[in-house]
Amino acid sequence: MIQTLPAGLVAHAVVAASSANLGPGFDSLGLALGMYDEITVETTESGLAVHVEGEGSGQVPDGPDHLVVRAVQRGLDAAGLRADGLNLRCRNVIPHSRGLGSSAAAVVGGLAAANGLIAQTDCVPADVDKLVQLSSEFEGHPDNAAAAVLGGAVVSWTQQGERTEYSAVEVRLHPDIHLFAAIPEVRSSTAETRVLLPEQVSHADARFNLSRSALLVVALSERPDLLMAATEDALHQSQRAPAMPASAEYLTLLRRSGYSAVLSGAGPSVLVLATTPELPVDLVEHGVKLGFTVKHMNVGDGVRWTSGVPATT
Amino acid sequence: MIQTLPAGLVAHAVVAASSANLGPGFDSLGLALGMYDEITVETTESGLAVHVEGEGSGQVPDGPDHLVVRAVQRGLDAAGLRADGLNLRCRNVIPHSRGLGSSAAAVVGGLAAANGLIAQTDCVPADVDKLVQLSSEFEGHPDNAAAAVLGGAVVSWTQQGERTEYSAVEVRLHPDIHLFAAIPEVRSSTAETRVLLPEQVSHADARFNLSRSALLVVALSERPDLLMAATEDALHQSQRAPAMPASAEYLTLLRRSGYSAVLSGAGPSVLVLATTPELPVDLVEHGVKLGFTVKHMNVGDGVRWTSGVPATT
Repeated sequence: MIQTLPAGLVAHAVVAASSANLGPGFDSLGLALGMYDEITVETTESGLAVHVEGEGSGQVPDGPDHLVVRAVQRGLDAAGLRADGLNLRCRNVIPHSRGLGSSAAAVVGGLAAANGLIAQTDCVPADVDKLVQLSSEFEGHPDNAAAAVLGGAVVSWTQQGERTEYSAVEVRLHPDIHLFAAIPEVRSSTAETRVLLPEQVSHADARFNLSRSALLVVALSERPDLLMAATEDALHQSQRAPAMPASAEYLTLLRRSGYSAVLSGAGPSVLVLATTPELPVDLVEHGVKLGFTVKHMNVGDGVRWTSGVPATT
Repeated sequence: MIQTLPAGLVAHAVVAASSANLGPGFDSLGLALGMYDEITVETTESGLAVHVEGEGSGQVPDGPDHLVVRAVQRGLDAAGLRADGLNLRCRNVIPHSRGLGSSAAAVVGGLAAANGLIAQTDCVPADVDKLVQLSSEFEGHPDNAAAAVLGGAVVSWTQQGERTEYSAVEVRLHPDIHLFAAIPEVRSSTAETRVLLPEQVSHADARFNLSRSALLVVALSERPDLLMAATEDALHQSQRAPAMPASAEYLTLLRRSGYSAVLSGAGPSVLVLATTPELPVDLVEHGVKLGFTVKHMNVGDGVRWTSGVPATT
C-alpha cells in the first residue's frame, strides 16, 4: 500500500560531479569530482514548484519531467511513498552537457533527497547499493551514478537478466594523484556522441581496453607512475574525436607532454590524472586558447543527505 | 661484439606454472601456480645435449628447437654472449598443453638459466622487465610469461609500435583466496583453440570484459567476496566450450555451485578462485568423473635462478 507523505517535510542533498570512463574503462570506471549540486525538497499539499539557480536555470524543464523531480518521485515510489505536492530548489554548480555527470548528479541527488524525506517516516531509505541501482536505471549505465553515490573512484558493472542489475565498488585513490578538469564552453550530448561508436570492435581492441582497465585499477590505487599506459583507450576516444576537435587536440597535446589526459565521460571536457600538484603554465594557456577553463579539482565525496535543511544552507 | 662463454659454467632455474586470462582478463591477467619446473644448464666445448625428465620426456624436440634451448640462447644473445655447446637438464612437473603455462615456464626458465650463466661474466643479466619482454616475445602475449617471471597475480599489457613492448605489474593477492586446479588428461593446444575466437566482437561484450577485468583486480586484492561477478567473461570461454565439453561442463557446475571457476588460459584445465580452504567433496568427485584431477594449488613464486647448482638439487 502506498502511503502519502504529510506536507511540510523537508530534506536536503549534496551531490558531486563525476567523470566516467577514465580512458579505457568505458561505462565502468568513474571518479567523483569535488564540484557539488545541492537539492532541497519540501512536501506540499499539492502541485509542483521547481526553482533552479545556477547551471541549467531556465534551460531545463521545470515540470514533472525535471530530472530531479523524477528522481525524488522514483525514490519515494521505491519506498512505497508518494507526495501530494513537491517544492524543489536546486542550486546547480556542475556544468551541463560537458561530460561531468550533471544528469547523474541530478538523479542521485534527487534519490538522496527522497531518502531525507523517507527517513522521517516508518519506511526504509535506500541504502548505497539501492541508490546505485535506482540511479543507474535512469542513466542506463552505472559509471557516473556510482561515482556520485559512493564518491572517489569506482569500478561499476552491469548484469543483464530479467532485470538489469547495476553494482559498484570503491577503488582506493593514491594520494599522489591530482585531478585537473578542462571544461569547454561548448556542450555535447551523451546520446549524440554515443551514436559515433561502432557496434562491433576488433577482438584486439577489446583485449587492449580490458588490459588497460585492469591496469588502471592498479595505477589509481597503488602505482600512479603507470597512469600513462593505464589510461590508453581504443574503444571510444578516437571515435569521438571528429565530433569534438578541440578536446581531441588538447587531449593529444597533454598526453604528448606526459600528462595522463582522458575524455571526461563522452566529453567534451578533458580530465587529467596528474602526479604533480600543478600543470605547466604553457599547457594551461594552450587549453585556454582552445576554449577550455582548466582547473584543479578535489576528489568528490559520496552523496550526502539530511532530513530538514542543514544550518549552513 | 659477441663473447663466447667458457665451457664448464653451470646455472639453475626454478619456474612456476601459471594460469592466464582468469576469466575476463584475456591475454592480460595471469596467476603463478605453485608447481615448478627446474632447469640446469651447463656450457660445454661443443654440441647440444638435452635431457628431459618428467612431463614431455620423449615428446618434445631435444635438439636446437627445444623451447628451453632457444630461450637459453635468446638470453645469452641479448647479453652479447654465446656458448659453443650446451648441456641441458629439465625436470618437468608442469603438464603440457593443459593451459597451465608450461611453454611460458620453459621460456622464462631458459632465460633465467641464461641469467645464471651471464652472472658469471662481465655482462649484465636481464632484469625482471627484460625477462617479461624477452619471454613474451616468444609467447606473443605476456600473461603467462609475466606471471612466471613475477610470481603471484599480474596485470600485463602490450604496446604495439615499431617493436611490440610487453609490460606487467604485480597485483597483491588477498590471503583469503584459495586456488584449485582441475587438470584433465586431455591435452589442448593454444594455437588451435585461439582459432575459435572471432576477429570481431560486440562493443557490449568488450565493455562487459573491461568492467570485469577492472573488478577482478579489486576482487583479487581487496574484495574476494566479489570474485564471482569479477570472473565473468564474454570474450573467449563460451567460444571455446565446444572444443572442450568436459571443461565447459565442470566450469558451469562449479559456478552454479557458487565457486568462481575460470578456464585456465585456453584450457582445458579449470581454475577455481575460492574463498574456502577446501572444495566440497561432491564437487571434487564430479570433477574426477569428468576426467579431472582436482588439486589445491599454492600461489606460485616468481622465477629464481642461481649460478652453479643449488645444494638441494
